[in-house]
Amino acid sequence: MAKGQSTRERILSESLRLFNEEGEPEQSAVDVANALGMSPGNLYYHFKGKDAIIRALFDGFEEEMRVILRGSRGRITSIEDNWVYIYIILEEIYDFRFFYRGLSALLDRYPDLAVRFRALLAEMRDAIDDSLDGLEQAEALDIHKRLRPVVVDQIISTLTFWLSRDAVSANSLESSSLIDKTVFEAIALVVPYMGDASVETLNTLIDRYEAAKT
Amino acid sequence: MAKGQSTRERILSESLRLFNEEGEPEQSAVDVANALGMSPGNLYYHFKGKDAIIRALFDGFEEEMRVILRGSRGRITSIEDNWVYIYIILEEIYDFRFFYRGLSALLDRYPDLAVRFRALLAEMRDAIDDSLDGLEQAEALDIHKRLRPVVVDQIISTLTFWLSRDAVSANSLESSSLIDKTVFEAIALVVPYMGDASVETLNTLIDRYEAAKT
Repeated sequence: MAKGQSTRERILSESLRLFNEEGEPEQSAVDVANALGMSPGNLYYHFKGKDAIIRALFDGFEEEMRVILRGSRGRITSIEDNWVYIYIILEEIYDFRFFYRGLSALLDRYPDLAVRFRALLAEMRDAIDDSLDGLEQAEALDIHKRLRPVVVDQIISTLTFWLSRDAVSANSLESSSLIDKTVFEAIALVVPYMGDASVETLNTLIDRYEAAKT
Repeated sequence: MAKGQSTRERILSESLRLFNEEGEPEQSAVDVANALGMSPGNLYYHFKGKDAIIRALFDGFEEEMRVILRGSRGRITSIEDNWVYIYIILEEIYDFRFFYRGLSALLDRYPDLAVRFRALLAEMRDAIDDSLDGLEQAEALDIHKRLRPVVVDQIISTLTFWLSRDAVSANSLESSSLIDKTVFEAIALVVPYMGDASVETLNTLIDRYEAAKT
């Protein structure tokens, strides 16, 4: 059994690597088996094809993202906390980037995963809302009630489409620069609601972002 | 010649309809010919396959978008102007929505169109920048210099990924509601920079958006 489980994990980890690096649509279960020097029959013993691999990869992503989103509840009280928090979310998304890059197409192909992905987005929305509550209670932030849902939407969009944006851009960035840039952009969405502290926070953020680039 | 040109236009307009409504990846040049009750040979006389059709559709989109972006220069001096302007841009994008829905995949498949699409995005960025200049000169807006490029990026992202966002969302909207919602979201990005007028503007925008929904 232990051996079986380790083969299963090797298949998942090699699939994730191939999908992320070579593009998921171009890869088949047989390509994964070949990359592992494994017979397609052996792979098939563990996963009944590529769909089963994609679902198992999503299981792992969903579980890890849930842990991240739930772990933060009630614990974000400064922009510093928020920076680290968004960084961790983006790193998790980056590990699973093939899924985000082909998001609409994948959700069309897997309606069951679409339902679960939307539930995860709703959970992310609650977590972001909760972190903004924390910042408002700490008096670091004051967003007009009628604008709050729009700001949350914009943060969620930034966290969902940053990889697509990078793919469309002429100058694709290295992963760590891209994550830093995206954290900066997400935080920048709330900077104008920080009152007197906003210019100071902005300068700190930009300096940190500039430092991270070098 | 007149008859030839009209056949060419019929092919383009039917292709656009099919790509938008049925999904571009699922459609072939033969599907387009069938939908028009035309022989594939006749279609081939006008377009050497689907790639040529997609390039011709892009030609039309690019030309119309250029006219919209250039026509506005120096003419946006109020949030009202900006609302109408963004509405027109989104309507143009909506007409060409198959392209935006499968954006990354299409740009991968057509590197020549990727270059032209990026040039168009750069032109859109200049136009947005110009409209923010107009609003600042009219003293309707004051954005911190270091935040300005981030705000422009966020507006461009909103205008580029609104259709992908809607596809990911559980509750897809009708086109006119979706366009209204997106204009509201794009304008909301600059509302916090409007100083004392911001709450009033926000209420006007929300009332207009609510009215447009009903």
